Amino acid sequence: MEKTQELEQLVAPLRDDLLSGAAEIALRAIFVFQTMLQGTDQMPVAAVHSLLTKTARALTGAQPAMAPLFHLGNSVLLSVRGAATVTDIQQRCQEALDRFEKQLCDSAAVIADIVFDLIPPGESVFAYSFSSTVVSALANARSRGKYFRVVCTEARPALEGRKLASTLASGGLEVIHTFDNALGIVLPTCRAAFMGCDCVGRPGLVNKIGSWPLAMACKELNIPIYALCGTEKFVDDERLFEFEKHERPGEEVWDAAPKGVRVLNHQFELIPLSWLTGLVTEQGILKEKDIERYVSRLEVHDALKLESSAF
Amino acid sequence: MEKTQELEQLVAPLRDDLLSGAAEIALRAIFVFQTMLQGTDQMPVAAVHSLLTKTARALTGAQPAMAPLFHLGNSVLLSVRGAATVTDIQQRCQEALDRFEKQLCDSAAVIADIVFDLIPPGESVFAYSFSSTVVSALANARSRGKYFRVVCTEARPALEGRKLASTLASGGLEVIHTFDNALGIVLPTCRAAFMGCDCVGRPGLVNKIGSWPLAMACKELNIPIYALCGTEKFVDDERLFEFEKHERPGEEVWDAAPKGVRVLNHQFELIPLSWLTGLVTEQGILKEKDIERYVSRLEVHDALKLESSAF
Repeated sequence: MEKTQELEQLVAPLRDDLLSGAAEIALRAIFVFQTMLQGTDQMPVAAVHSLLTKTARALTGAQPAMAPLFHLGNSVLLSVRGAATVTDIQQRCQEALDRFEKQLCDSAAVIADIVFDLIPPGESVFAYSFSSTVVSALANARSRGKYFRVVCTEARPALEGRKLASTLASGGLEVIHTFDNALGIVLPTCRAAFMGCDCVGRPGLVNKIGSWPLAMACKELNIPIYALCGTEKFVDDERLFEFEKHERPGEEVWDAAPKGVRVLNHQFELIPLSWLTGLVTEQGILKEKDIERYVSRLEVHDALKLESSAF
Repeated sequence: MEKTQELEQLVAPLRDDLLSGAAEIALRAIFVFQTMLQGTDQMPVAAVHSLLTKTARALTGAQPAMAPLFHLGNSVLLSVRGAATVTDIQQRCQEALDRFEKQLCDSAAVIADIVFDLIPPGESVFAYSFSSTVVSALANARSRGKYFRVVCTEARPALEGRKLASTLASGGLEVIHTFDNALGIVLPTCRAAFMGCDCVGRPGLVNKIGSWPLAMACKELNIPIYALCGTEKFVDDERLFEFEKHERPGEEVWDAAPKGVRVLNHQFELIPLSWLTGLVTEQGILKEKDIERYVSRLEVHDALKLESSAF
């Protein structure tokens, strides 16, 4: 199948992207849906429905920890449900993609405004991994005239912390950078910490590995720590644990490990919500008790339910 | 001065060694003293005294965090004090070196026997950085028939955790290895943690950077954590903070950091003694309250006193 191959070619770079955050990858996934819709005018309606289902599943499976990819696919599938012509499918799909893109961008803008007030002027703040939401919030604060330093670490093994440092520095922010293990040296100099989020639910928040020691250290040092996440990161309990599927080859950590050494390369981990000062969302700063309200009203399309997706 | 150049050539590799622990480097420093004594037969007595003082200061300054280097130099200088002939100096120096070497080796053996009882059979234990004392203790337990797994992380930026993993694996131990940031994934699977020590005093224990998050995480997870350190690691309060002098070039962390990014490369950090379950020494397992007794009776040669060493 030509379209199936094309889908795999479009999804592969998103699956192998270890440097970008969930919101950034979701924006690129919109383009995947748009590309898949091209050339479908003459296809049977059922085939186009099937194509969108495959696309939604492929994107969700590409980065199982990243809730926005699931929500994007879910929105598309729920929107085109019952569409009886290809034109109707195309139109409803495009509307769903537009809504999703607008929601992501609007969320980021509201979150950035909230974060502005959380940055103590003239002080250092810690930022971890690479999150486009964190970057835009910090850049927004700087461009609105607030002076502060950002401290960040490498985020081994993919080193997306360097991408964060470079991006912030190119935006005129002063950056202090070191290796991940040096957390105990640099974190005590910070007055707040910010991280992104891949998904969040009742059992906790999932983010890039390294977030657990950071959140624990913030608790120990009484430094407020916020996860920046629009409500498109909220998922039900089962989906939350999908992140455990995302293990990468040990060779990416150590390419020449000797016999007898097993190398682990996990990507994401769960952080207790009680360790976080708050979740900065487009609905304001939420606490653990607020999560229930969002996850209890999630509607999941049958094709993306975890029971049925083992096809 | 020929001897001064020779000293610098002998000391440089010890200063640049980021992969070895304090006990291992101290054993190599014994050889530096022996080499410096060669060819001194025809030198004036005062010149030989001066040479030994320079050697002790150079070694202490090469790795300011590593207490055994200070104690080695201090033992030599205290031993040769008042020696009136070159032969007398040579003899007393060699005796001091022999005593120090024997003490290091005897300590490691006693510590290994204590550690044997601290390893829960069939379980995983965590080991951090590279410490010859930790390696010999774990290898000893394995060779005495105890089966267990060792979990360790890289220890960026010098990656001495890989040296640890390779050494243990070549000794027949099963090793699980990952990057430092993945502590929250692997540590909960461990039943005990062991680390080396560069120096210890009333304000805390100094060890390779990364020990602070490890000890904090062990506290959080209620995992017993032991620092393995002979009493040759004990120092007074002023010397303890010498570790802060040991900062390496940022290029060793990131060789191409962009403008606006300042890269820090600290090597050692202070861990509160209250976070450690105990210090495993040749005198048994010591607690915070026991430290006083050892540091209060330390005699420091005038040439190595911190006030006078700014020559």
